[in-house]
Amino acid sequence: MPKIVDHDERRLELVDATWRIIARNGLEGATMREIAMEAGFANGALKPYFPTKDTLLEFAFGHVFNRTNQRIAEVTRGKSGMDALRAFCLEVLPLDEERINEARIVIPFWQKAVNDPQKADIHRQSMEEWLAAIRGHLTEARDAGEVRTAVDDSLLAGQLLNMMLGAQIEAALALAGQTDFGHAEQLEGYLALLRN
Amino acid sequence: MPKIVDHDERRLELVDATWRIIARNGLEGATMREIAMEAGFANGALKPYFPTKDTLLEFAFGHVFNRTNQRIAEVTRGKSGMDALRAFCLEVLPLDEERINEARIVIPFWQKAVNDPQKADIHRQSMEEWLAAIRGHLTEARDAGEVRTAVDDSLLAGQLLNMMLGAQIEAALALAGQTDFGHAEQLEGYLALLRN
Repeated sequence: MPKIVDHDERRLELVDATWRIIARNGLEGATMREIAMEAGFANGALKPYFPTKDTLLEFAFGHVFNRTNQRIAEVTRGKSGMDALRAFCLEVLPLDEERINEARIVIPFWQKAVNDPQKADIHRQSMEEWLAAIRGHLTEARDAGEVRTAVDDSLLAGQLLNMMLGAQIEAALALAGQTDFGHAEQLEGYLALLRN
Repeated sequence: MPKIVDHDERRLELVDATWRIIARNGLEGATMREIAMEAGFANGALKPYFPTKDTLLEFAFGHVFNRTNQRIAEVTRGKSGMDALRAFCLEVLPLDEERINEARIVIPFWQKAVNDPQKADIHRQSMEEWLAAIRGHLTEARDAGEVRTAVDDSLLAGQLLNMMLGAQIEAALALAGQTDFGHAEQLEGYLALLRN
């Protein structure tokens, strides 16, 4: 009987290998050969899954975003208003090693996206989704009297999102081993500003 | 008489060419050959100034930071407190084409810095300087009664800095031609939050 190969699972193994290589060697150092080796593939065995490094990268970055969104769905389930907003932001912020590694992967993606309209489009669509989610939570929080500032929700949503993007840069460029940047306290302080 | 060459000026010409090439072709597309052509240098004539692409990039990014700091010094001169803070942030935010181009250059630098401790160190030192400047303006603003929130200044400074870093990403990854992202309004809304 021929060996049954789960192609989706193989793809995710490759994505995991890609992350580890990029986090370790940077984008330029992530060659298809090294990714294949890391994932335990024979050189050339990647081609049926990802014909080019670019298709692999796009899939890998899409997967980071989806995984973050799955975690967001889990932590915000059953919550609304300020509670949901806090849970959302705590999940996006690079508060542990796993997410600091994700930040180290998202920056090469942004760099690629600066000169690649398709990747920039993926980024903008993702950010539109997050902005809509943040605005939704802000509306609930206002209805519940948890947000009282006169500043417009769309401005607040933009502030929060940019703050969370900036936090990725801080975490990815920190000294090796540093995992606490005070981002949770920064978030709590920001949410406190909204109550007045 | 031998032609007198101003080496500092030549270096800055190369930096300008580097920016244009990176903004146009991305980091990978910026070869020493293309940078030389863009600056009107013979191929190989770059070597005495910058022996490697890496030394050129580090000099170029340092120059972006210095230029921003010169502009900050100009716009904050004679100001203090909230006025100085606003002027500082308006200068860092990517509010026009020149600064959006600078954002398109700083992202490749961050990407390099993820796996290059020396570049990451340059980034962290620059951010420490900016955080200190922001905290200084916040202290003055508090003394003048312009900042009344109970949230700690060091948290506020971190929020503002990360917000401005995130804004660079938004601007650099926007659709070509878009130059207004509402960042000035976001900043004004944030400063309003501090008054309560």
